[in-house]
This record gives sequence, structure tokens and C-alpha cells, in this order.
Amino acid sequence: MKIDGILTRSLWEVRDDPAAPVVGIIDQTCLPFAVVHRRIGSAAQMVAAIASMQVRGAPLIGVAGAYGLALALRDDVSDAALSTAHRTLNEARPTAVNLRWALDRMQAAVVPLPPTARAATAWAEAGRIAEEDVALNRALGAHGATLIAEAHRRLQRPVNVLTHCNAGWIATVDYGTALSAIYQAHDAGVPLHVWVDETRPRNQGLLTAWELAAHGVPHTLIVDNAGGHLMQHGQVDLAIVGADRVTARGDVCNKIGTYLKALAAHDNGVPFYVAVPSPTIDWTIDDGAAIPIEDRAGDEVRIVTGRDDAGAPTRVRIAGDETRVANPAFDVTPARLVTGIITEHGVAAPAQLRALFNDTPTVTSRREAA
Amino acid sequence: MKIDGILTRSLWEVRDDPAAPVVGIIDQTCLPFAVVHRRIGSAAQMVAAIASMQVRGAPLIGVAGAYGLALALRDDVSDAALSTAHRTLNEARPTAVNLRWALDRMQAAVVPLPPTARAATAWAEAGRIAEEDVALNRALGAHGATLIAEAHRRLQRPVNVLTHCNAGWIATVDYGTALSAIYQAHDAGVPLHVWVDETRPRNQGLLTAWELAAHGVPHTLIVDNAGGHLMQHGQVDLAIVGADRVTARGDVCNKIGTYLKALAAHDNGVPFYVAVPSPTIDWTIDDGAAIPIEDRAGDEVRIVTGRDDAGAPTRVRIAGDETRVANPAFDVTPARLVTGIITEHGVAAPAQLRALFNDTPTVTSRREAA
Repeated sequence: MKIDGILTRSLWEVRDDPAAPVVGIIDQTCLPFAVVHRRIGSAAQMVAAIASMQVRGAPLIGVAGAYGLALALRDDVSDAALSTAHRTLNEARPTAVNLRWALDRMQAAVVPLPPTARAATAWAEAGRIAEEDVALNRALGAHGATLIAEAHRRLQRPVNVLTHCNAGWIATVDYGTALSAIYQAHDAGVPLHVWVDETRPRNQGLLTAWELAAHGVPHTLIVDNAGGHLMQHGQVDLAIVGADRVTARGDVCNKIGTYLKALAAHDNGVPFYVAVPSPTIDWTIDDGAAIPIEDRAGDEVRIVTGRDDAGAPTRVRIAGDETRVANPAFDVTPARLVTGIITEHGVAAPAQLRALFNDTPTVTSRREAA
Repeated sequence: MKIDGILTRSLWEVRDDPAAPVVGIIDQTCLPFAVVHRRIGSAAQMVAAIASMQVRGAPLIGVAGAYGLALALRDDVSDAALSTAHRTLNEARPTAVNLRWALDRMQAAVVPLPPTARAATAWAEAGRIAEEDVALNRALGAHGATLIAEAHRRLQRPVNVLTHCNAGWIATVDYGTALSAIYQAHDAGVPLHVWVDETRPRNQGLLTAWELAAHGVPHTLIVDNAGGHLMQHGQVDLAIVGADRVTARGDVCNKIGTYLKALAAHDNGVPFYVAVPSPTIDWTIDDGAAIPIEDRAGDEVRIVTGRDDAGAPTRVRIAGDETRVANPAFDVTPARLVTGIITEHGVAAPAQLRALFNDTPTVTSRREAA
């Protein structure tokens, strides 16, 4: 996607020194108030970038984890270094399954190789994961855009879409997940308007508003409390969110507060969609209650970042250290509240998710049969 | 209640000049960062104080409206002045029915009187409304405290209560509504802990946290998104909120986001209570959809108030003027999601609310019969 007219990705390789490649990122803790590029020069720096949410969004932290392992192998090709990097990167954030998925794939690609071949293969594999992320998100967005276009044909007026958190291009390498559907519908001329949940405590809704404004998509910022009221009054035609992990039966783990919007959608007959590339699906578990929910620092609630009257990035403390805070970062929306899961293979009700990916569970058995 | 050990009310008469009484308030737009007292010297100033939320909370703005009419009559006892003051005060905020209730009661008290008797009667009547507010809130809080004590007897551990917005003593003249129940349970030795919803955009949860800290009640601040997740994990035993208007059938209009918490409570079998003094009940309507919902300024969402690093009150802008914002201030929770309504007469399921107040609808007929 573009920032100020320049095609940009959220993460890229930097090969100023061909012998020592590094990774470039947009520091998302500075958005939307400033676009700051940073260079990530080691696996440890990548762990810190993921944990601090300089890179964030389940698809993007999968790719970032892959590059973290490539950075580790650039410096040390031993099994021990590989194992340590896999563990520390995987522990950087616990909830999104993309991170573990990407690290496992990287490990599987390099473990059989002689040490001298590992680093180059790791960088190539991380690059493939990044390119696949772009392709998956473009494909799932096309399916999502069809849903929005169908709603427009039915309603014969602009479609009001509600989204929570940021499932945009900066949450991925490019295109986004929920916003990929919105961008592609908008680009196809489908009139639409997006209700953007602020998404406390980290206010990722401001990232979504920034993305939508840059792309010219009409949108309105609302507090997280408002979506239910809007649904009661017919002002939301469908909801589309991303996810950090979807289970095999279609339970959806996503940014805290998603469950409340899904309840309101269900109560008001508003279709509730979840847009995810397949690496976000955890086929190993059915029950969303098994997903580890990250507890983050209380200061994310106590301190709000914005601009001062002169326009400079600044922050205010809304509560003191003496105020006890709980800050669970995700919740689980049970499959019964989910209308459909939008993937690169198409859209499926939760109960049909396995059938949509009937290739995936059989990869092993087909290989065994071969 | 007390601030720094000194018994304080949220609104009081100031009679430094006996011929020209004024009204003292705590400016709640400065809380919890500073306790600022202001003098309200005219009906127009009271309109501004109500509209800007220097005084807020349905019970308190009822009393503030009554004193606004008293201020108007202090200066001009004519029917025209009375009518203008009634209208402008009533229009200061549209949703809470307490304002109209108090203004109508004031008008009924003074209209039959000769002009020379009006001002003194108005001040006396406003004082009675204020004292009654204190008594009603104390009484309903005792009923609510019983519910918390019963939960403790059943659970044999501290009771986790979730509340939204601020239904504390500063939202009334004294005691509060939802928090009156919590204070009285705490004072009776019932172990409890309160989950305090931040309550964007105005962050009245910070007022609740400030009240609870001053009273020594254990509590934890959470973002509005978190309550559903906590309920899914058994961490909320009951929810108690206040209201700006309850209809005759028990639909509950309260701070935006209340509906989402009621949905989550219902989905998880968590009892959901609404604590209101009877002036908050609008017996003239059944359907909550008939209640006017106030749309407030977008800057309430765009600008967040707190303290800077040096501890001075300050603010940050999280979104620019170019970001379109919608800011509905209230929503309506349908009666089907409400376990009980806590009033000064006791606790009733929504369908039994009329029966609980069977005196009230018959006041007119009893008078007619007399």
C-alpha cells in the first residue's frame, strides 16, 4: 500500500551490506503520529520489536519472527543458536499462532541442512513467507470484497462495515486481512463506510483510521462502547475483524473487546465475519479456551499517547501507579457467534472451516501415501 | 462522603449573601486530577455547568436543575422567567429523565404561588429534592448491599462486582446509586472487589476509581473492552450500573457501552443489576427506543485529559479534526437483559417494577378519590 503516494510495506529486507542483511520496519508505536523506520539488526532486537509492538498484527509478527530466525542464523548457524532464537522469538508474544507457525516452518527448512547452507536458506524462506502473506491477504480480501458487494446489491446504498482493532496492511506485510476486503471493495467501486472502533488500550483504531484516510475510504471513529448502540439502530450492515488465532472449530481469538461486538452483532442479526490467512488457523485445537491470553502492562491503560497542542507526539497519564490495572490483550469469540471465516480459500461458516481446507489436514497422509 | 477526611457533597447552597444565595459545585471536568469548587450564580451558568458536565450523573443533574430554577427565580419571579429557565435547563441534556422530573416538580411547587413567595419556596423545594436524593440513594444502596452480601454467603470469597461509568456519590448529591450498594456492603464488612470500566470517551471510570480509592474499596481499572472476557472466565459475580432513565417496563438507558456489558452478563449467567432512585424511572414510556440519545461533541473522543509527566493536568489529541467522529453518549439495554432494578423500595425484576411502585401510579387516583 502507499504512504504519501509511495508504495510501502510494513517490513522489508535491507541489504546495504550484502554480507550482513538486516530488516527494516515501520515502528508502529509511533503511528499514526509519525512514520518512523527502524532497522532490526539481530534476533534479540526482533524479540524486543515484537514484544513492544513496534511490529504487530498476527500475520506480520509471523513474518517478523521468520526474519528474526534469519537474523539469528546470519550470526550463528549452530543448532543451539537456532533453538534459542526459536524459543525467545516464540515467547515474545503468546497469543497469535502465526509466530509459532512461521518459526516452525523456518526451523523445518533449515534443520536438515548443513550449517553452511542454513543462513541463506533462512533468508530465502523468510522472504517466501513474506511474499505468501501478501498473496494470501490479497486472495482472502477478494472473497471478503464479494461479501461487501453482495450487501450493497441487497441494500442499494453504501454498506456500513464495523471493524475492531487494526487488521490493515500494517498488521500484515501488505493488503491486510479485514481491511484487504474493504480496500478491494472500495477499489471496485462498491460504496461503503467503515465504523472504526478506537480499540483501547493501544488505540489501534487510530492506525485503521490512518490507513483508511490514506486510501480514501470513508470512515468514522467511535469509542469501543458505541458499536452495540449503532447495531441496535441499523447503522451496521456487517462486521469484519481479523484474528490472532482461529481454532479448528472456528473459535476466534482476537483483540480484547471483539467478543462484545460479536454478541451485539448476534443480538441484532448483523453478520459477523473474521478475515484470516490460513497461517492464523490453529488446526491443533478446537476449544478457544485453550489459547493463551496475553496479559500486558498496566501502563498501556494508564498512559495515552497522542499529540500536544503544538502537534508534537506526547502522552498523558490518566491513572497513577497506585491504581491497579488489569490488561488482558485478547478475548475469544465462540464459533456460535461467527457468521463466516474469510480465508484465501473462500468464506466458510465455522463448522465448514475444516471442509474448506480439506487439503490441509491430509497433507501428511498424502505424503505418507506417496 | 469524604474527600481527604472532610465530609463533602457534590453540590451545596452558598449563603454568604443571604439575599443572593448561589450554588457550590465540585467541577467534575477537573476530577480526578484536581478537586475544584465552583460557584454557580445564575440559571444560565447552571445550564452551562450541566451541558459541559461540570455537574453530571442523572440524580445530580436533577438536583442541579432544581437549583437552576431557584437561581432563575432569585433574579426574576415572573411566569416568563420561570418558563424560560425550565426550558433552557431541560434542554441542557436530553437523556436523563431526572432533569425534567425535578424541573416539573419545581414548577408545580411555585406556579400556584404569588410572585413574592416564589423564590423562597423554590430554594426550599430544591433543598428538599437534594435531601430526598440523599435519602433515596441511601435506601436503595441498602437493598443493593444485601444482594452483594448474599453473593458473598453463597461464594464464600470476595465478591467481584463490575460497574460501568460513575454511579457514585459525585453522580448524586451523596451516596451514589450503584456505588451506594458497594459502599454499604463494604462498610458492613462484606469482602468485595470492583472491576471499574474506564468508560470512554469521558473516562468516568477514573472518577469511580477515585471514589473507591478514597473509601478504601479494592478495585481494578480495566478498559471497556475487557469486561466480557472477565465474565467468560468467572471473574465477575455480578454487575451493577446506574442509569439515566429506566422505562416503565424496565428498559435501561445508561452510559454508552452498558448494553454490551449486559449482553456479556446474559451470555455468561452473570446477574446484571441497575440501581436507580425512583426519579430516574420514566413511567410515561415503555419502550426504551423512545428515549432521546444525546450526541456529544467529537472532541470528547479526539482529546484525552490526564496529567503530564510533572503531574500537571493536561490533554492530548489522539485524532485530528479531519477524522470524523460519532459520539452517542448513551445506549438502551432491553429489559430482557436486566436481572433486577434496585430502587429505594427494594429490588424488582423489570416486569415487577410497576408492582414494586404500586403506590406511585395511584397517587393521582388516590388524590382524586380523597
